[in-house]
Amino acid sequence: MKKIPVSVLGATGVVGQRFVQLLDGHPWFEVVTLTGSDRSVGMTYAEACHWVLTNPMPEWARQMRIVETDPHSVQTPIAFSALPTQSAWEAEARLAQSGVLVCSNASAYRMEPDVPLLLPEVNADHIALLAHQRKQRDWSGGILTNANCTCTGMTIALKALNDAFGVEQAFAVSMQAISGSGYPGVASLDIYDNILPYIAGEDEKVEQEPLKILGTLRDSKIEFAPLVISAHTNRVAVTEGHTVCLSVKLRSATTPEAAKQVMSAYQPPKVCTDLPSTPRPVMRVLEEIDRPQPRLDRDFGNGMVTTVGRVRSDPIFGLKFTVLSHNTIRGAAGGSIYNAELAVALGYV
Amino acid sequence: MKKIPVSVLGATGVVGQRFVQLLDGHPWFEVVTLTGSDRSVGMTYAEACHWVLTNPMPEWARQMRIVETDPHSVQTPIAFSALPTQSAWEAEARLAQSGVLVCSNASAYRMEPDVPLLLPEVNADHIALLAHQRKQRDWSGGILTNANCTCTGMTIALKALNDAFGVEQAFAVSMQAISGSGYPGVASLDIYDNILPYIAGEDEKVEQEPLKILGTLRDSKIEFAPLVISAHTNRVAVTEGHTVCLSVKLRSATTPEAAKQVMSAYQPPKVCTDLPSTPRPVMRVLEEIDRPQPRLDRDFGNGMVTTVGRVRSDPIFGLKFTVLSHNTIRGAAGGSIYNAELAVALGYV
Amino acid sequence: MKKIPVSVLGATGVVGQRFVQLLDGHPWFEVVTLTGSDRSVGMTYAEACHWVLTNPMPEWARQMRIVETDPHSVQTPIAFSALPTQSAWEAEARLAQSGVLVCSNASAYRMEPDVPLLLPEVNADHIALLAHQRKQRDWSGGILTNANCTCTGMTIALKALNDAFGVEQAFAVSMQAISGSGYPGVASLDIYDNILPYIAGEDEKVEQEPLKILGTLRDSKIEFAPLVISAHTNRVAVTEGHTVCLSVKLRSATTPEAAKQVMSAYQPPKVCTDLPSTPRPVMRVLEEIDRPQPRLDRDFGNGMVTTVGRVRSDPIFGLKFTVLSHNTIRGAAGGSIYNAELAVALGYV
Amino acid sequence: MKKIPVSVLGATGVVGQRFVQLLDGHPWFEVVTLTGSDRSVGMTYAEACHWVLTNPMPEWARQMRIVETDPHSVQTPIAFSALPTQSAWEAEARLAQSGVLVCSNASAYRMEPDVPLLLPEVNADHIALLAHQRKQRDWSGGILTNANCTCTGMTIALKALNDAFGVEQAFAVSMQAISGSGYPGVASLDIYDNILPYIAGEDEKVEQEPLKILGTLRDSKIEFAPLVISAHTNRVAVTEGHTVCLSVKLRSATTPEAAKQVMSAYQPPKVCTDLPSTPRPVMRVLEEIDRPQPRLDRDFGNGMVTTVGRVRSDPIFGLKFTVLSHNTIRGAAGGSIYNAELAVALGYV
Repeated sequence: MKKIPVSVLGATGVVGQRFVQLLDGHPWFEVVTLTGSDRSVGMTYAEACHWVLTNPMPEWARQMRIVETDPHSVQTPIAFSALPTQSAWEAEARLAQSGVLVCSNASAYRMEPDVPLLLPEVNADHIALLAHQRKQRDWSGGILTNANCTCTGMTIALKALNDAFGVEQAFAVSMQAISGSGYPGVASLDIYDNILPYIAGEDEKVEQEPLKILGTLRDSKIEFAPLVISAHTNRVAVTEGHTVCLSVKLRSATTPEAAKQVMSAYQPPKVCTDLPSTPRPVMRVLEEIDRPQPRLDRDFGNGMVTTVGRVRSDPIFGLKFTVLSHNTIRGAAGGSIYNAELAVALGYV
Repeated sequence: MKKIPVSVLGATGVVGQRFVQLLDGHPWFEVVTLTGSDRSVGMTYAEACHWVLTNPMPEWARQMRIVETDPHSVQTPIAFSALPTQSAWEAEARLAQSGVLVCSNASAYRMEPDVPLLLPEVNADHIALLAHQRKQRDWSGGILTNANCTCTGMTIALKALNDAFGVEQAFAVSMQAISGSGYPGVASLDIYDNILPYIAGEDEKVEQEPLKILGTLRDSKIEFAPLVISAHTNRVAVTEGHTVCLSVKLRSATTPEAAKQVMSAYQPPKVCTDLPSTPRPVMRVLEEIDRPQPRLDRDFGNGMVTTVGRVRSDPIFGLKFTVLSHNTIRGAAGGSIYNAELAVALGYV
Repeated sequence: MKKIPVSVLGATGVVGQRFVQLLDGHPWFEVVTLTGSDRSVGMTYAEACHWVLTNPMPEWARQMRIVETDPHSVQTPIAFSALPTQSAWEAEARLAQSGVLVCSNASAYRMEPDVPLLLPEVNADHIALLAHQRKQRDWSGGILTNANCTCTGMTIALKALNDAFGVEQAFAVSMQAISGSGYPGVASLDIYDNILPYIAGEDEKVEQEPLKILGTLRDSKIEFAPLVISAHTNRVAVTEGHTVCLSVKLRSATTPEAAKQVMSAYQPPKVCTDLPSTPRPVMRVLEEIDRPQPRLDRDFGNGMVTTVGRVRSDPIFGLKFTVLSHNTIRGAAGGSIYNAELAVALGYV
Repeated sequence: MKKIPVSVLGATGVVGQRFVQLLDGHPWFEVVTLTGSDRSVGMTYAEACHWVLTNPMPEWARQMRIVETDPHSVQTPIAFSALPTQSAWEAEARLAQSGVLVCSNASAYRMEPDVPLLLPEVNADHIALLAHQRKQRDWSGGILTNANCTCTGMTIALKALNDAFGVEQAFAVSMQAISGSGYPGVASLDIYDNILPYIAGEDEKVEQEPLKILGTLRDSKIEFAPLVISAHTNRVAVTEGHTVCLSVKLRSATTPEAAKQVMSAYQPPKVCTDLPSTPRPVMRVLEEIDRPQPRLDRDFGNGMVTTVGRVRSDPIFGLKFTVLSHNTIRGAAGGSIYNAELAVALGYV
């Protein structure tokens, strides 16, 4: 099979680097375009990019020239966006109009009514909104978004519980990795021997995005799921992997054992089965009393598997547990790639 | 005033070291006895102790000989206990019987019906239980305990809210410092670039101890406060200072502004006013959006002040905020010393 | 080709875990025996082992039963030893006598005159000493050792320079990872926000082992290389990867450019070419001014490649640079496996 | 005594904050002016400054308005400079001309022939150069500089050895704290689980500055000391405290015991005896085999004392040891304040 040429928008940042790394050797996609800010246009990727991942920069990327993020420079059927929110608004729309399917990790379009906010394991069917989006906006391409990194793992866990028992309310307290704030991101003096109890806009995303993802697509509209989430989001001294403590009130009460069973057994929609990035299993439920731990569990299943542990009774809400998800893989670049695979499999590209 | 001679039990561990440091230059107390395990008895403190605090070991302590933790060796009116739980059970009882007032940081006796679990800012009146304890157990000394380090700060905040509005339920998620696990405690490979989502027995303490502290002393019995707490306790890569995210359901709803006002204005019982360790203020409420932070706020007021921040509305419970408390000072050694000061002021010594 | 069955001695520690991980899918070897201390004999590996690596424990290892480290339990032609030094003395000798070729990471036998201290890239020919060892000790198996983790990378760099210019003196200051001290190893309170300027026995190893490795085998004896090393060894807050700053006095002066050329171009002995673990290249010389860095460079070439950078003039010794090597892969388990491959290729097994 | 009014130039950065903290309660000086960049002029210090020290910002500083760094705004007899190098060139000269004695931590003027590079413990007599500077430049104020933070501790140790035995050559490898790079300074992703083997311009400073400090003032000129230093400078994950491993070749050989004796016994020039910031002792020599450690030793003597340990024989140079100095106190703000005290005591203000 001939590979589909793809672009990475905003390729020099932390998430851009993850796109480059995860697309290295991807069975369906081949990177032919890397874009960057004005500062880096014209430079090679090796020159422009302060690489921060432990795996070395792929050889093919080193000599690629950075181009501008516009329809003249980006002419691939698919583009992966690691753009900052403010530039994403305009740049993604222009590319979508010019025929590119933008699989975006930016938050800009996530909550737009006609833009799918996709986690294929959870709501692959929401991709049907893309047809509506194209018609309504007169776009030949389109925009698909994936969830905020902190929402990703917890929403996958909530999906399994919601299907089985109904979720009414959830408290979520996150302990998030520094890679989530990009590069240079958090200053070392701010996080060393420290915790930052505030991340701009993050409480709101964690309280809102899961409602859309768990919602129902009806008549080209997403009806949000009827649950309430309260979030406290924190930054801690971990390089990769977001950990979330969850207390969940279910509509029909259950036991920790049954909850574990439901989460372990959770199956993605059929259409996901053969996608290269589908996590297997979707969720791994650990019995060890002191897991999940970011350093030990974030890389499981190439960073695409959600790990759940500490499932136990909650004296107020009935159920509590801890969820871990790799924030720059499953929660960012890997998620966008997974969305693109879904779009290809369903003929949207 | 002649200083009261005191002992430190289990002086070589992390909390024992804090006792030695905080008692250096204390206006009322003078350390004359240091006890340790069999391994260290007979050694000087400088030899026996792997000092881990940033302030150097006080000179007077260096040459002091470690003695056994028994009534023959410990003959001061007050002893501060940093003993491990299992040895605390027997050793503290024997000393209490022999006439020593043991101000203990161990968890052993905390939940015993006739043992005060004291935070003087909160429940100084519970010390009256000591008379009952002495009679009932036929002890001429006695045991006073302070709360678990994670409970300390959050219970102080809950007290102010409970007085003003009534607290019905609370979710508490902790991010606890490594010093809380003693020395050698947490292995570096376990916490570096990592989070440990489990601390043995800690969820239970956080769910139970505040109920006793906030309870009412009636007829020599503590009636527990009628509130329910759900806890997730975690260890993170911070040296000192426990941070707790709290969502609180109040009996009479209020605004974040009113809650802040109540916490800032909270006054300790009158009897505490002139105790050397009384924090001033009891609680500091910060307006900065990204505070409290352990590295910046733990040492405020010599580590005795509780810092609250991020006070805001909670979509489920009405109110949420973050509390920080120095775990080895206010939450351990400093707390026991504060209890001893209360006992002295009230004539129990 | 049928795989050769192998054992891992002391399989539950940090280096033992690395053996298990690196042997997972090894093209020549298959692990059939795992040994451990009395405490863990009879348990499954999953039960006995506190796994600290980021890659999950291989499935085949989980249910394997831990056996004793003695000739009755260990009957494979090759055994990899991650034993502590004190138990290595006796256990390795008994296995060597019973016919096992012990490829050991322990320091016990490293400096014995008839035991090869091997880095195949450097002194593959020293393996000939094994014949002498077998005869002299009446062993049908034998012992091969690899170098101390800190020596490994720097000795490889010194080899290339010694061949080309002759090395007369070297200053070496190490900044070593916490994984090098095993598990639980360094207490978090000792290394967090800290440096430990002392590692027991390490200065001596760094000053002595390279002399043997760079020595000449003549008449069944190693003549030590005539160079002098001065070492300062330190522990820093890095999980994996030992960094060494080196200043080197060469017998024939050279330029940084020529030194870089010699190190980049260094080729291992022919016999190493087809061994599965041979690093390609042996040394990677980086031009970026701020490299090598442990987090970015330790995993290059599966952790078997030595990375050199900051090559520049030294105002006293003529040449200075920085060397990085993965301490639990190239400097420990990976090194022993590489030695075993050499022994197999040369017919010693 | 009425306190001397002083200014802090560049007050919002990490070193500026240290000036504010160390001058809080200083017996001779009182801060009346704080300057900052255009961005912050007109704001209060509390608004303009992202405070990163563990001690809270002094109350008196919070409401002080930031002014420009020029002679109209700065009219105190003494100004402490934490300016970045490039702005220091012009701003310090203009203030010096207008009558202000600038005690600068910037590197700009350090190597100018007529500018004293002062560590009062070492070369208090070099302050006499100030008269020459004033005459030559027609300045009524002047500029005094203190050494680079990494040079500070090691030069103090070298001074004692040089006086006693003569120092011929020294190898210095530093492990420097992140606070040394200012705020935001080092990105957390760059230093977490990592080492940076390069700090711009630092090798050169460490190789040059000690030669001037240890030099001899003759006829209004400093003759540099005839020794050669080779430096490798590294950044490590430590918040405060620079550690340097030193190997030293002495002109007359000595024993580690004698070297320790000489360093412990080192006395500052008489004129320093009564200065408020004089460290007592100048150097603390530790016998514990694993000291100095930054977390345990940096704060000794309010961060002004230099700590030496691991004094032992060096197989190449005869003597080796480790030196620790607090980089933002003794090595920066505290050093400038100490210089100002010297200037006041000698009548230069």
